[in-house]
Amino acid sequence: MFLSVIIRSFAFTSARSSFSNFAGMDKPTLRLGVVQSGAKDDKKENLKVAREKIDELVKKKCDIIVLPECFNSPYGTDYFSKYAEEIPNGETCHFLKEMSSKNKIHLVGGSIPERDGQHLYNTSTVWNPEGELICRHRKIHLFDINIPDGIQFQESSILKAGNTITTFAAHNWKFGIGICYDLRFEELARLYRNKGCHVLLYPGAFNWTTGPLHWELLLRGRAVDNQVYVAGVSGAYCPNASYQAWGHSSIVDPLGKVVTKAQHDEAVLCVDLDMSLVTKVRQQIPVFGQRRTDVYETVEK
Amino acid sequence: MFLSVIIRSFAFTSARSSFSNFAGMDKPTLRLGVVQSGAKDDKKENLKVAREKIDELVKKKCDIIVLPECFNSPYGTDYFSKYAEEIPNGETCHFLKEMSSKNKIHLVGGSIPERDGQHLYNTSTVWNPEGELICRHRKIHLFDINIPDGIQFQESSILKAGNTITTFAAHNWKFGIGICYDLRFEELARLYRNKGCHVLLYPGAFNWTTGPLHWELLLRGRAVDNQVYVAGVSGAYCPNASYQAWGHSSIVDPLGKVVTKAQHDEAVLCVDLDMSLVTKVRQQIPVFGQRRTDVYETVEK
Repeated sequence: MFLSVIIRSFAFTSARSSFSNFAGMDKPTLRLGVVQSGAKDDKKENLKVAREKIDELVKKKCDIIVLPECFNSPYGTDYFSKYAEEIPNGETCHFLKEMSSKNKIHLVGGSIPERDGQHLYNTSTVWNPEGELICRHRKIHLFDINIPDGIQFQESSILKAGNTITTFAAHNWKFGIGICYDLRFEELARLYRNKGCHVLLYPGAFNWTTGPLHWELLLRGRAVDNQVYVAGVSGAYCPNASYQAWGHSSIVDPLGKVVTKAQHDEAVLCVDLDMSLVTKVRQQIPVFGQRRTDVYETVEK
Repeated sequence: MFLSVIIRSFAFTSARSSFSNFAGMDKPTLRLGVVQSGAKDDKKENLKVAREKIDELVKKKCDIIVLPECFNSPYGTDYFSKYAEEIPNGETCHFLKEMSSKNKIHLVGGSIPERDGQHLYNTSTVWNPEGELICRHRKIHLFDINIPDGIQFQESSILKAGNTITTFAAHNWKFGIGICYDLRFEELARLYRNKGCHVLLYPGAFNWTTGPLHWELLLRGRAVDNQVYVAGVSGAYCPNASYQAWGHSSIVDPLGKVVTKAQHDEAVLCVDLDMSLVTKVRQQIPVFGQRRTDVYETVEK
């Protein structure tokens, strides 16, 4: 069975036909790999670490691999402009293109600072096994927060927000993407479920204030409300960085159970996503069809 | 400061003016009491137990007390018709009216089977300190579920669903109500938050399959997404009942932390809700204003 891998793709210039054996082949189980790597103030070193982790997961025969938020750059408003690249012509996109096509995998490039004219975005790119960029997601909800004695951050002082929700297909699976703070907004996840997603991917970098409070709770909440797999893909803790990521990358099943999770150090995770579990959970607790769309509805504008 | 206690009240015949010192007085902290009681096949005994538990919480000076789902009747499709009463003229409403006015409290009558002409509903009634019925919520999402070797239930075989969402005010606090399975539908909670609620009340009776899986996760998820207090008010475990409630009534704060919870036996809980915490959480993580309502919106129909 062949499916188009592009369901809703962001406009870009290099798109070609996306039918391929790799993209279209039916997969009752799909092996998902997650990279938890730390980013230093050295882009080449960051890409080298990403390469090593991808290679490690390719040896485990992963079908799709997801990198963390800002995997090529330290996370911080002081770094975004210096590390920003145009998509798809920058060094990091060339790296992602090479790694996806060489290894015949879907590769979700966590996020990178993207430069588009005068604007910077926090952007995830998705590559198919032929090395084609099939979509990009620009972080919709910028991380502006102020917890005294905890965490202060104003992403909007530097970045512009994306305006579109982003899905893609790999084999017979449909994915939705959010970046970090996007995870807090349950209406985004609802729209992904309404569009038929089976898996939500959240490259992220929660911190040591909000991470212990909410990271796992939010991942599990999105999973149980929408009966989807959810992967939270965090940067690793870096002792010398200006921003300390919480780590604890996790893969959660459609019942809301944490299948596997990392601690805060660098790690890889690998889980077989099971379509029969998605189907079973949705049949047994049939909430999707029981939503009272005569009383309320979540709409995309 | 005087506020109308009726924000959106279901149509009923006995409504009078709802301004009162009790309803309108500003309360930076509001003492919430929760009753976890088991219902036997004996309505008088069930009301007697409810009276004892309310008395216990009144001694603790609670401002508002919430009873569990189906507190006057065993939970089960075989019982709903036998135990059903008209609202507000039945025995149970008379009891609730008496208890609220005598004790000068707001009283949320968990739920009871309601008879309205040919139809039965699973209905929560709310009474102010003057013994006035200020609103009722008819369960919107009926509990139809089929987990083999777990739990099967078809509430819709007997009951009709309500069609309206229900808020009320007590002092300076605004409340939203859902009954049990309503808790699974995050769009209902979102609408309550959008209407300005500070507290969500979920009288419920999860079971020993879905309770351990999802009860606490759902309560905490609603709290963190909407930055509200959430009270899950369950029936107690009754060894000889046909339906075994999970218990574990819980009160969760706007950060998603479980402030207090019961085990599965009969219990009462009592917590001071702190408006300054609601305000602080909403200021520090200002997600409500950061929702991208230019990209999506949850609408009430």
